[in-house]
Amino acid sequence: MMRRASSLDLVDAVSAGEPRAIARMLSRAESGAVEARSALDLIYQRTGRAHVVGITGVPGSGKSTLVAKVAAQFRTRRRKVGIIAIDPSSPFSGGSILGDRIRMGEVTGDPGVFVRSMATRGALGGLARGTLEAVDILDAAGYEVVIIETVGVGQDEVDIVRAAHTTVVVSAPGLGDDIQAIKAGVLEIADIHAVSKGDKPEADKTVSDLKGMLGLGVALAGRIVGRLAPVVKTCAPKNEGIAELVEAIDAHREYLASSGELEQRRQAIRERRTLKAAEVILHDEFENHREGRMAALLAELGTGRISPQTAARRLLAHVGMEASE
Amino acid sequence: MMRRASSLDLVDAVSAGEPRAIARMLSRAESGAVEARSALDLIYQRTGRAHVVGITGVPGSGKSTLVAKVAAQFRTRRRKVGIIAIDPSSPFSGGSILGDRIRMGEVTGDPGVFVRSMATRGALGGLARGTLEAVDILDAAGYEVVIIETVGVGQDEVDIVRAAHTTVVVSAPGLGDDIQAIKAGVLEIADIHAVSKGDKPEADKTVSDLKGMLGLGVALAGRIVGRLAPVVKTCAPKNEGIAELVEAIDAHREYLASSGELEQRRQAIRERRTLKAAEVILHDEFENHREGRMAALLAELGTGRISPQTAARRLLAHVGMEASE
Repeated sequence: MMRRASSLDLVDAVSAGEPRAIARMLSRAESGAVEARSALDLIYQRTGRAHVVGITGVPGSGKSTLVAKVAAQFRTRRRKVGIIAIDPSSPFSGGSILGDRIRMGEVTGDPGVFVRSMATRGALGGLARGTLEAVDILDAAGYEVVIIETVGVGQDEVDIVRAAHTTVVVSAPGLGDDIQAIKAGVLEIADIHAVSKGDKPEADKTVSDLKGMLGLGVALAGRIVGRLAPVVKTCAPKNEGIAELVEAIDAHREYLASSGELEQRRQAIRERRTLKAAEVILHDEFENHREGRMAALLAELGTGRISPQTAARRLLAHVGMEASE
Repeated sequence: MMRRASSLDLVDAVSAGEPRAIARMLSRAESGAVEARSALDLIYQRTGRAHVVGITGVPGSGKSTLVAKVAAQFRTRRRKVGIIAIDPSSPFSGGSILGDRIRMGEVTGDPGVFVRSMATRGALGGLARGTLEAVDILDAAGYEVVIIETVGVGQDEVDIVRAAHTTVVVSAPGLGDDIQAIKAGVLEIADIHAVSKGDKPEADKTVSDLKGMLGLGVALAGRIVGRLAPVVKTCAPKNEGIAELVEAIDAHREYLASSGELEQRRQAIRERRTLKAAEVILHDEFENHREGRMAALLAELGTGRISPQTAARRLLAHVGMEASE
């Protein structure tokens, strides 16, 4: 009973926007601790107000600086901003490449901005364990805009678009063809394109290249499917294009709400999270009981007599039994 | 009974190395059809002889050309080579960037080489559905070396190392810092480093940079953990360094066998595949029965009353029941 009460207290403190409670809850979510589950369920029921914005792009695109400026711009519009910065980390060492970043510039110390860095883990795709729960926590705590920032490429971007209502893809001028090839699959997830480093001479070419690509896509499709993603040129150090970018983000939110697409996206996110949560449960069961209830299955797998496919069905039968208890 | 017999016939034809049977079995594996499952289980029991080699690197590293030369080199050593080339495809359109590639040069038409391109799909991580079953099929069909080639970055590389006995990471000289940052997490999965484009003046610097990084890793660890990955400079168009690379691949296989690490890796691959197969089953159940047995769960999820975490437990309970039938 004590635990229940204390867990409820923590949830109430999070809802009241207390920074220390938020930080504690975020740590619990990140740890994946079973005890956090009921608190996270309560928090989930208090979500739904925040506009979740994913901002993504290849390393070197200047996206961290851009995020800081976007946050500051939202603050001038009196909106509270939560930022979840995903750091790439090696799947083997678990270490973070970037480490803790102190790079939020003018919004540092502003109680209307909450920043949390999370490391990615290789095993379960691009998004860190607890990332989506972290979005819930900041949403429930009253942050009206929650920004998820990734520095990854590939799978990360796919995952982020599935967690965000609005996705901004940042392109830097002058990156080579190699980078462009990597990005080919990423560009089409953009609701908004931001071109960074707008003071570079090549920036205008990047803008027109992007517009050309988008136009080509429309031409190939033979009609406009939904809306055409706007392209916004920015120069974060000079604070240029930031207001326009924030207006494009707001305009996209209004488009989602008025077109009914917001509810579709919300449902897609819920479903995606359900699958992801189920995968995490499977993974934990498999890894945490190697010497215990998984030992027989692992030994049989080791003989080569049962295929991974058969072993998978046994694992599911076992986990399903646990889950229905 | 007819189906069982015909499935067995197909498996026998695959084991006999008949190219058309192999191609048909590969298509069945890729389709993920339930009917393929028993045949794939039979095939799995006939595997274990092939040396599975993952070759990976960023786009533009010249890895496709390298793979063709490596295959030709293995042929001069009278070994049959299967190649599974993973094409990056957009997770949204499902289209392949590279399409079918006719790029195998001198090994085209050699019956001792079997090449199959597979498209990646975003949903389930870097490896295409059926990739690991494709490795089984080529193994059972008598290909002594099975090469998995990826053109991805990030998650792909992590997945490939978990499917291969030996992983070769290809680095091209002169790629910028942005690319290097992407690769930071990838370098440490290498059992062997290949530097491509060895005729470029910067190639020697790339070789010494890599050796320096590896040396630094040893210095940080305070001791040599396992073996130090060799760095091989290659120039595929001139066929330079290819024999050395193939020798390094063979030497790694001997190291794995003599150190006992081969069996550890095999078991890790089996376990990884088990989890992946379980995830695919979960995913298929969720997606394929939206109007049917998943409808109630989806509707409740849509109300926001149950969290994805709770929905995940219900999904698992349901799938577990199906799996134990």
